[in-house]
Amino acid sequence: MFQAAVKTFSASSGGGLTCIRHYCKKTARKLRVSEAVSGAGLGANVKVQGWVRSVRPQKANLFLHVNDGSSLQSLQIVASSELNNPSLTFGSAVEVTGTLKKSPHHKQPVELEAEQIRVVGECNPVDFPFKIKERHSLEYLRQFPHLRCRTNAFSSLLRIRSEATTAIHSYFKDNGFLQIHTPIITSNDCEGAGELFQVEPSGPDHDEDENFFSVPAFLTVSGQLHLEVMSGAFSKVYTFGPTFRAENSQSRRHLAEFYMVEAEVSFTQSLEDLTKVMEDMFRSATEHVLAHCVEDVDLFHKHVTPGHREIVDAMLKRKFPVITYSEAIDILKRSSEKFSFPTDWGCDLQTEHEKYLVKHCGNIPVFVTDYPFNLKPFYARDNQDHPEHTAAAVDLLVPGVGELCGGSLREERLDLLRVRLEEAGLEETYSWYLDLRRFGSVPHGGFGLGFERYLQCVLGVDNIKDVIPFPRSSHSCLL
Amino acid sequence: MFQAAVKTFSASSGGGLTCIRHYCKKTARKLRVSEAVSGAGLGANVKVQGWVRSVRPQKANLFLHVNDGSSLQSLQIVASSELNNPSLTFGSAVEVTGTLKKSPHHKQPVELEAEQIRVVGECNPVDFPFKIKERHSLEYLRQFPHLRCRTNAFSSLLRIRSEATTAIHSYFKDNGFLQIHTPIITSNDCEGAGELFQVEPSGPDHDEDENFFSVPAFLTVSGQLHLEVMSGAFSKVYTFGPTFRAENSQSRRHLAEFYMVEAEVSFTQSLEDLTKVMEDMFRSATEHVLAHCVEDVDLFHKHVTPGHREIVDAMLKRKFPVITYSEAIDILKRSSEKFSFPTDWGCDLQTEHEKYLVKHCGNIPVFVTDYPFNLKPFYARDNQDHPEHTAAAVDLLVPGVGELCGGSLREERLDLLRVRLEEAGLEETYSWYLDLRRFGSVPHGGFGLGFERYLQCVLGVDNIKDVIPFPRSSHSCLL
Repeated sequence: MFQAAVKTFSASSGGGLTCIRHYCKKTARKLRVSEAVSGAGLGANVKVQGWVRSVRPQKANLFLHVNDGSSLQSLQIVASSELNNPSLTFGSAVEVTGTLKKSPHHKQPVELEAEQIRVVGECNPVDFPFKIKERHSLEYLRQFPHLRCRTNAFSSLLRIRSEATTAIHSYFKDNGFLQIHTPIITSNDCEGAGELFQVEPSGPDHDEDENFFSVPAFLTVSGQLHLEVMSGAFSKVYTFGPTFRAENSQSRRHLAEFYMVEAEVSFTQSLEDLTKVMEDMFRSATEHVLAHCVEDVDLFHKHVTPGHREIVDAMLKRKFPVITYSEAIDILKRSSEKFSFPTDWGCDLQTEHEKYLVKHCGNIPVFVTDYPFNLKPFYARDNQDHPEHTAAAVDLLVPGVGELCGGSLREERLDLLRVRLEEAGLEETYSWYLDLRRFGSVPHGGFGLGFERYLQCVLGVDNIKDVIPFPRSSHSCLL
Repeated sequence: MFQAAVKTFSASSGGGLTCIRHYCKKTARKLRVSEAVSGAGLGANVKVQGWVRSVRPQKANLFLHVNDGSSLQSLQIVASSELNNPSLTFGSAVEVTGTLKKSPHHKQPVELEAEQIRVVGECNPVDFPFKIKERHSLEYLRQFPHLRCRTNAFSSLLRIRSEATTAIHSYFKDNGFLQIHTPIITSNDCEGAGELFQVEPSGPDHDEDENFFSVPAFLTVSGQLHLEVMSGAFSKVYTFGPTFRAENSQSRRHLAEFYMVEAEVSFTQSLEDLTKVMEDMFRSATEHVLAHCVEDVDLFHKHVTPGHREIVDAMLKRKFPVITYSEAIDILKRSSEKFSFPTDWGCDLQTEHEKYLVKHCGNIPVFVTDYPFNLKPFYARDNQDHPEHTAAAVDLLVPGVGELCGGSLREERLDLLRVRLEEAGLEETYSWYLDLRRFGSVPHGGFGLGFERYLQCVLGVDNIKDVIPFPRSSHSCLL
């Protein structure tokens, strides 16, 4: 049996073993690697548990690095060579007891002088897909979604993602926003028609002629309409959760399941009320991540995407410029760049255009406002301007990524909204949405931010599949 | 047009209007209701925006209550009768400018002496489904998922839900857990077979003979297996998100979409490592909610579920008792209660049993451990005991609800796990899961908590549909 493989080696041999075990049990304080490397427990008898990141046997001594995911840094273990054993390999799980001491080497502040090393779980280095001292590419790691968290790069990514999540929640909480769990399954079906996932029970018990929910039900493409419900009672709300697109695309930019941060603000006066929240949130989250994940972010900025740190620093230095869509079209028309897509007024901006506009504005995030009315969905607020008829919509474009956020003021005027829904034949489907304007309607607006794109923007990571724990896209749903 | 209906009335008439407007624009400080009622801005000229919760015209004065969702409390507005107008009705949206003063009445500390009241959005009181001064039942509110957030009870619920979410995230962050976004769409299909939702693109473009993901894909019933992936690199991880069951049930206890908090801890020694986290999290979140949502929780404990506060206080007073499944069976067998389901060793505990056990233990939460091996899924750790063969699994049962959490140590021993998967014919499907045991396996375990059941437990709310913003269940997916 596997447990028989667990081997305990102790610095003293023979009769001393029981004694040491007793001693460890009584006094060894359990410490996480992040605590140990930060100097907590110096001089104390401690126990550290984790996975071996390196093994370096020397004549008299054995050097190990042990990591438990609490930080990028591993803890150096120094042990007598007697404590070495064949199960101590890269990837194996160990429990080490010993004394935490100041390290004589400048590379790490502390090291653990081991008295006992116990291999808890072996790891055959031949079968294990990651090799000691090799820096595997993100692409290579993607083949092993169940193991890639055991590498430095992906564990850093996961710590950054967790911290960025915290930062975004904190921003909203500190600014008086209420968090709403908008639904995943919804009967709203029109906005992204053709790119929706439908949901029905699987298995033989399911009656194919009848919908489980009595109506067709889909995975949400956005929590906006449900947030708008809440905007009739709370002046600031947000949601942060998964959204879905059944896009048949294998690109580096798209996922079938991705996370969106969406916010809705009531009693707005202009788009500025939204761009302020978007910019503040971006700055606040980014500054938080840069301050709280120094080593993890450095790993990306130094080894994965060298040169990206300067871009991030530049982003945070200046206020984000605001240009109108019409100005953007002028810029594109005046440019000498050859675009694949047309740049006429009325055409949607493509990624190539967005990236050009960002470069044009100094390679920092830029807001583009007031898009052609006809490009925007029914809920976008009519600017009632002419001859160029626009809607009060805004996108935030960022270096490397293009569109990061999209938002708009919402049409709060019952009559205008009703006409628009009538024209689209949707008045009945959206009678509940019209109700929101019938009873105490207020000017309001909101936006959505693609969370994976945000991480790409901050870290410079090229492929969106490398910033989410378990990527889903057409023809791929591993695990 | 609707905007024509916006009416501005000012305390001064005629030529004074411009002057007052000018004055307001220059000096009125925008304040949220929660800030205003807490005394911020006393004596200052302020602007408050929100929805009318009551209108009381008297001879000389008009009294309004305005709420903006920032707190249960509304702000009392006192205005000269001249400012009254027919659009000022229950549910209408208003913007009020005036001076914040100490109130002469004991019911509220401050009131806003209005200089200007602007109706931003009208609300026809005949059509509006909620009536002034009526306390509508939660059941009645359920018919209006797009409007019920505008009532005191449901807005309180949403504030509590948001705060409880924050509290749970804080607990995990403060205790060194990494947050993981486990996937919603998954190709794992066996655990809840028959109760799974399957996912495929909708619409005519979709090729019915080919799966979008190349394999059948389902909505997750639990993030556990994906968290276990992370348990091979991080010693503490958690996830908090939506999970799904295609249960054909209309009960007060079940939803097709509900939120789960799931945690996984590596290097566990016994079930105690899990019960400690479960109990600590429950206490920490509950104490946080009781301390931060005093008025909102009071609304439930006083008006919706009177008497429940005593139960909650009692829950927090004592350490949660721990009994084994075998002891639980003994208790049930000795009881004089007539149960509908059998109480023989080997039978699963039903809600009636769980509720009895909770009562028996003093109506506080109780852990039940070491369930029959055959009742538990393949991943539960074999206790290898006899003659009564059990698994290291644990449930937390709570007053009113029954099962709130379920967890177990996971089988980390490769050989035992492989045999079990082979017996179930699942060895190939779960070869990735076996890999986790092949490479640096560690003893670990985890649990899941039903977030809606948690809210029901703390608030005493009987129907699970009343503690989630947009409930989904068989035959019902409104909005």
